[in-house]
Amino acid sequence: MSNMDEMEITEDGVCIGNFRAYGVREGKYGVALILNDEVCESVGVFTKNKVNGASVPIDKEKLKRGGIRAVIANSGNANCCTKTALEDAKRMCEIAGEKLGIDADSILVASTGIIGKKLDVLKIKELVDKIDREHEGSSNASKAIMTTDTYPKQISVNYRGIKIGGVAKGAGMIAPDLATMLCFLTTNADFGKEELQTALENAVEDSFNMLSVDGDMSTNDTVILMSDRSHECKFEDFCYALNFVARELAKLIAKDGEGATKFLEIEVKNAKSRENARKGARAIISSPLVKTAIFGENPNWGRIVSALGSVIEVDFDKIDIIFSNDKDKTKVVEKGVTGDLEKAHEILKSREIRIVVNLHDGDENAVAYGCDLTYSYVKINAEYN
Amino acid sequence: MSNMDEMEITEDGVCIGNFRAYGVREGKYGVALILNDEVCESVGVFTKNKVNGASVPIDKEKLKRGGIRAVIANSGNANCCTKTALEDAKRMCEIAGEKLGIDADSILVASTGIIGKKLDVLKIKELVDKIDREHEGSSNASKAIMTTDTYPKQISVNYRGIKIGGVAKGAGMIAPDLATMLCFLTTNADFGKEELQTALENAVEDSFNMLSVDGDMSTNDTVILMSDRSHECKFEDFCYALNFVARELAKLIAKDGEGATKFLEIEVKNAKSRENARKGARAIISSPLVKTAIFGENPNWGRIVSALGSVIEVDFDKIDIIFSNDKDKTKVVEKGVTGDLEKAHEILKSREIRIVVNLHDGDENAVAYGCDLTYSYVKINAEYN
Repeated sequence: MSNMDEMEITEDGVCIGNFRAYGVREGKYGVALILNDEVCESVGVFTKNKVNGASVPIDKEKLKRGGIRAVIANSGNANCCTKTALEDAKRMCEIAGEKLGIDADSILVASTGIIGKKLDVLKIKELVDKIDREHEGSSNASKAIMTTDTYPKQISVNYRGIKIGGVAKGAGMIAPDLATMLCFLTTNADFGKEELQTALENAVEDSFNMLSVDGDMSTNDTVILMSDRSHECKFEDFCYALNFVARELAKLIAKDGEGATKFLEIEVKNAKSRENARKGARAIISSPLVKTAIFGENPNWGRIVSALGSVIEVDFDKIDIIFSNDKDKTKVVEKGVTGDLEKAHEILKSREIRIVVNLHDGDENAVAYGCDLTYSYVKINAEYN
Repeated sequence: MSNMDEMEITEDGVCIGNFRAYGVREGKYGVALILNDEVCESVGVFTKNKVNGASVPIDKEKLKRGGIRAVIANSGNANCCTKTALEDAKRMCEIAGEKLGIDADSILVASTGIIGKKLDVLKIKELVDKIDREHEGSSNASKAIMTTDTYPKQISVNYRGIKIGGVAKGAGMIAPDLATMLCFLTTNADFGKEELQTALENAVEDSFNMLSVDGDMSTNDTVILMSDRSHECKFEDFCYALNFVARELAKLIAKDGEGATKFLEIEVKNAKSRENARKGARAIISSPLVKTAIFGENPNWGRIVSALGSVIEVDFDKIDIIFSNDKDKTKVVEKGVTGDLEKAHEILKSREIRIVVNLHDGDENAVAYGCDLTYSYVKINAEYN
């Protein structure tokens, strides 16, 4: 049996066991290195966007071949849709290889930033060359990959001896489909490629993919998991811990959505299928009308129902909608009848809000994570370049 | 051969032939009546949202039976998701029937406004009772159905003797899927139900549905077409004129998107299928990152390519992206290479912007209509209740 009480939060970040990390940034550009002295079993999950940054096909190919020991990631430029993107991405791996004294083929690459502008490879080299003891640490790596993020995102756990660490960078939360999400995970769990891949895909499904609309992702979205395989453990325990880490990082991303003032957790409960629960939760979390209502602390539940009805069958006479914060909760709708909107309005004044929609139509549940839509979102994205 | 030179814009609005219209409003509530002394051949296209305002099933049923002579529409309340919605919608038809001295069964109904609050039927009756000579006219009807619209939307044409008139109300343009769009069309074209339905569906497909993401519409979206059948004409000519009217109304809606400062026309050209062209154009027009970039007059074409790649295969090395306004045009991307971004920035300063993405991958085209995403959009939708 899995047990959350045994989930110990640690301070390692991605630097568990012999994993090391470095990060350096100057202005818009930042570079992070995550590495291990030994070859790691490594797997990845990538964007489904048909237009890709150069890092995506390169990493896929390298992961197929194996022998991975490190990742280099940059912020400031997505290295996507330029004539030299592939060659620039390869050059990045060479630069990292020269610095670390290892083969460029053993290094994965990831990029985030503007699309369509040539990557400044000289700048990357300059930053990599600078990397020194003072830039060591998971925190430095997590800071180096930030773009519009307002804080670095990192977590690590020890669960029954299984260590998992992660750093991530976020995405504009109104349309997670179009802003790049990067996440690098390290672990000691001793599993082969297939099991690691399965575990990672499942973890992504209930975390990063519940920030987003399936199949609609940025050109560069990348989640990498590297294992030094130093710890034998039950697959079930590993998955439990990995799901936890991925979900916590997804929540950190949601809380730091561009311009966000409120964090939203939307649960669709008792749907007749898992697919319906997932679709429903994602439709609500993605609705600009719901997100602006929450920003305005306006308990306009009609928008929630409308978002739901745009993707799944809803028997309105059966549904309950519950708003809660850490102190209080209220039924905004009970079996199709409006509840106490004044209390709902009070709850919406909190920074973290949970909305449960109970369909009373089956027994499948799904949770989606997001944030409100604010003036600042518009400002950030009108000016960003 | 169709000929735009013969398209005469008239001043009738929906009041062509013996059609009459009335509109009255007080505060948030408004009521419009559109009617004919004779029975009209009538058809409709409705929202695909699974949650519906009461008007939707009622109208579908009445259109099946036929014998329609009038429509009553209200703004201020969507009459959706309340226990009394069906009975309140029927009561609206009775109120109109009493006023007009005709059978309630011959009257269609449509509602727009907030979801989940009981319709104030007494208010509707009060407004209908007030209706008098002074409230006559298509303009009054078009004003009565406005919600967050900043101007009434109306057009009418005479094309080779075919008269078509229309009034419409708009939708929040960031997610047209969740804000109600109503449109009432009248014509003299002598066609039966089946032909009118085909013509209307085709017209909606290339106009209102290109403001929106298929299958994702508001709870109440409604387009009604009524014909007095007084003019025999070629079906092809009728379709040509109907398409024009629907497209012009769709553009008026896009130009008046909530908080919009710029009107956008996005054409995806030379796609390998019509479906690809449509999907691509809609993905671009729906992207919050594209919309905020346009608001910021920021020629960030990477966001356009990314939006496109999220839905269709794109060979970036083949594509051209052209920005234009009424005076000027520039290739922002030519065969995958960035062009003159300074000139593109200048073009984006216009109020009306056209973006053409040429995929050079086939010969199918599609146009989508929309607007930018602004601070005001957030304000309107945070406060709206």
